[in-house]
Amino acid sequence: MIKPMTMTQKILAKSAGLDYVESGQLITVNLDLVLGNDVTTPVALDAFNKLDNAKVFNKNKIAIVPDHFTPNKDIKSAEHCKCVRKFSKENEIKNYFEVGQMGIEHCLIPEKGLAIPGDVIIGADSHTCTYGALGAFSTGVGSTDMAIGMATGKAWFKVPEAIKFVLKGKLPKWVSGKDLILHIIGKIGVDGALYKSMEFTGEGVSELSMDDRFTIANMAIEAGAKNGIFPVDDKTLEYIKNRTDREPRVFTADDDALYSEVIEIDLSELKPTVAFPHLPENTKTIDEIDEEVKIDQVVIGSCTNGRIDDLRIAAKILKGKKICSDIRTIIIPGTQDVYLQAIEEGLAKIFVEAGAVLSTPTCGPCLGGHMGILAEGERALSTTNRNFVGRMGSPKSEVYLCSPAVAAASAITGRITSPEEV
Amino acid sequence: MIKPMTMTQKILAKSAGLDYVESGQLITVNLDLVLGNDVTTPVALDAFNKLDNAKVFNKNKIAIVPDHFTPNKDIKSAEHCKCVRKFSKENEIKNYFEVGQMGIEHCLIPEKGLAIPGDVIIGADSHTCTYGALGAFSTGVGSTDMAIGMATGKAWFKVPEAIKFVLKGKLPKWVSGKDLILHIIGKIGVDGALYKSMEFTGEGVSELSMDDRFTIANMAIEAGAKNGIFPVDDKTLEYIKNRTDREPRVFTADDDALYSEVIEIDLSELKPTVAFPHLPENTKTIDEIDEEVKIDQVVIGSCTNGRIDDLRIAAKILKGKKICSDIRTIIIPGTQDVYLQAIEEGLAKIFVEAGAVLSTPTCGPCLGGHMGILAEGERALSTTNRNFVGRMGSPKSEVYLCSPAVAAASAITGRITSPEEV
Repeated sequence: MIKPMTMTQKILAKSAGLDYVESGQLITVNLDLVLGNDVTTPVALDAFNKLDNAKVFNKNKIAIVPDHFTPNKDIKSAEHCKCVRKFSKENEIKNYFEVGQMGIEHCLIPEKGLAIPGDVIIGADSHTCTYGALGAFSTGVGSTDMAIGMATGKAWFKVPEAIKFVLKGKLPKWVSGKDLILHIIGKIGVDGALYKSMEFTGEGVSELSMDDRFTIANMAIEAGAKNGIFPVDDKTLEYIKNRTDREPRVFTADDDALYSEVIEIDLSELKPTVAFPHLPENTKTIDEIDEEVKIDQVVIGSCTNGRIDDLRIAAKILKGKKICSDIRTIIIPGTQDVYLQAIEEGLAKIFVEAGAVLSTPTCGPCLGGHMGILAEGERALSTTNRNFVGRMGSPKSEVYLCSPAVAAASAITGRITSPEEV
Repeated sequence: MIKPMTMTQKILAKSAGLDYVESGQLITVNLDLVLGNDVTTPVALDAFNKLDNAKVFNKNKIAIVPDHFTPNKDIKSAEHCKCVRKFSKENEIKNYFEVGQMGIEHCLIPEKGLAIPGDVIIGADSHTCTYGALGAFSTGVGSTDMAIGMATGKAWFKVPEAIKFVLKGKLPKWVSGKDLILHIIGKIGVDGALYKSMEFTGEGVSELSMDDRFTIANMAIEAGAKNGIFPVDDKTLEYIKNRTDREPRVFTADDDALYSEVIEIDLSELKPTVAFPHLPENTKTIDEIDEEVKIDQVVIGSCTNGRIDDLRIAAKILKGKKICSDIRTIIIPGTQDVYLQAIEEGLAKIFVEAGAVLSTPTCGPCLGGHMGILAEGERALSTTNRNFVGRMGSPKSEVYLCSPAVAAASAITGRITSPEEV
């Protein structure tokens, strides 16, 4: 008898060639994509090159995106990129993306149709869970797992149990997917979904844009989750249309699947939410912030919030306004295509006129890489995903996490501000 | 009896309150502007703070532009910027330019009307000589001189002798001011104008755009010159119109002024010119390059070639073309205003569609700062000003200098290429 499975379990079972998997079971799955970046791929290559007769399992199923410290911030990052480029060339890696032709990996991979419903994807980057937005199973792994994945096309997992998030209602004005995921992490904590799937379901899902879903799935890891995943609907299929020739494989959780927990969330009750230092779980809704929180820098971008919807919201707020002269505002489109769209839609003009830095796509300051590092005592408000100690520079700096709307509003006032206020 | 003077000598004499100066004479002059950046100002402040009762001589006559390693590439550069920002705030420095509101200092200062004909300007940056394009005396100094300049409004100089460059004719298609100055440096060498003024004159001057003149004056230092300077004409006056309330002071060299050398150049005979590693004097015209020189990176930007004319030329060549997939092309507008203009004129779209990185204004890779550093064995073709060993990254990398036209053409082919060829 086949027992009921969650959506994630169904994808994993199929990929493992099994009829049924249950949480805790160790399985080996076939991979649809193995992903690496300029930071993790060189480490993976060290391991890869130690294998006997190391060869890539499929040159079309590996993607390498040098996005972290590029355009090269220093000689070390230049050497890393050189090593990755050489490997990609020698092995004819189809989806190696050169600087100038690329973007932040987790924005780029869906855009290029390299993640579609039903895929099983590993990436040597913790935010690989982003592609759950498309109804794929995707998760971050270490560089050694990436190496083995590149060589064998396989990975092993312990099948995760799942938490079911039942969404209903519709997000209010200025409230976005970022506020929802911050709300969830604030509620369950940074280990609230440890090694579990976060499965989003309910009528509220259809109200979320694809970009909202990417943001939410992206930050599943910030609750400790193995993956975050959304059901496949018309919006999903519309998104992948013209991006891939492959057929999506749509999996649906069984109605009677076993969940460790079911959490219901009414989207209409959410408010703009900010995570205070130094953990994403330290959340306050904008109306709960009773002190003035002055900021030195605003960052809008990253694999969490560097998509066109994010830039549109920021532009809506910044249009015709001037950024507070005391602060730096750094806006980073997620990919070259997003950048181009921002130019074509007039968003780029709005940002530069407002006095923002508009950067070429890069992970940049999110992980303290470059393009906006903080000095001691400085405070950033950022649409990125982590506000750990020293994440964006000095160990004595602070990062507050928020949505693009809150970030843009705060750029104008120089302090954490509700979008309603500007 | 007042003896004849060069243009530079006349400006210096006036600023020193003297009727006459001669080369070799030590004088003290009054400064119209003292300039620093994020790299040199912190060092200047160390010296400044050691002075008894240190105060700035005039908060309106100091300009501070954090352009080198910004947006902050690391914690160290963040600390430098923080120190500069604090000083500027405490001393109410009117012309402190925050990241997002600024650009590369030598593009920004003229744009903001802070350098006009007749000015005497020192800057703790070697390319301060740029403002000679406007008929000002401007020169690079050390950080200690910057400190004393900020405190006293004065600087001392040994009056330079001068070389007269008599220009005639008109530049051919695809040949620009960059080719002229590379031609000159190739001819006289990197010490060919050591501690001299390079005074440009002749009917050919009127054929040069202001952006060409900025490029030429900017690289006077690469021939070892104390300054480079152009006569003031209608183009100059048109350029400063609406940028300043101050009255320009127009100085003209005496016809019988004494020059150490007079060099005549027919602009119509110039060709696209490239400086090979590792000195700007190692020039070849494009038709003299008989080997294939493959490149890994193209850089278009810097205080030398980051102005709107430069971007327009590059866009003209890149329009509808794709950059060679093997190379990175990094285009950096000189200022936010240039960036905005590039967006409005459709240049930004052309660059991104071609597959170039379009960066926020920064000195970036020019001095090996960030935003495109070279690994060992890599080769860049760049519109910047110096190709010294390791200038743009690894000591085992190479930099070739050229005009925006040659850079753009070569970005398409992946090797050093004449603009005529694409």
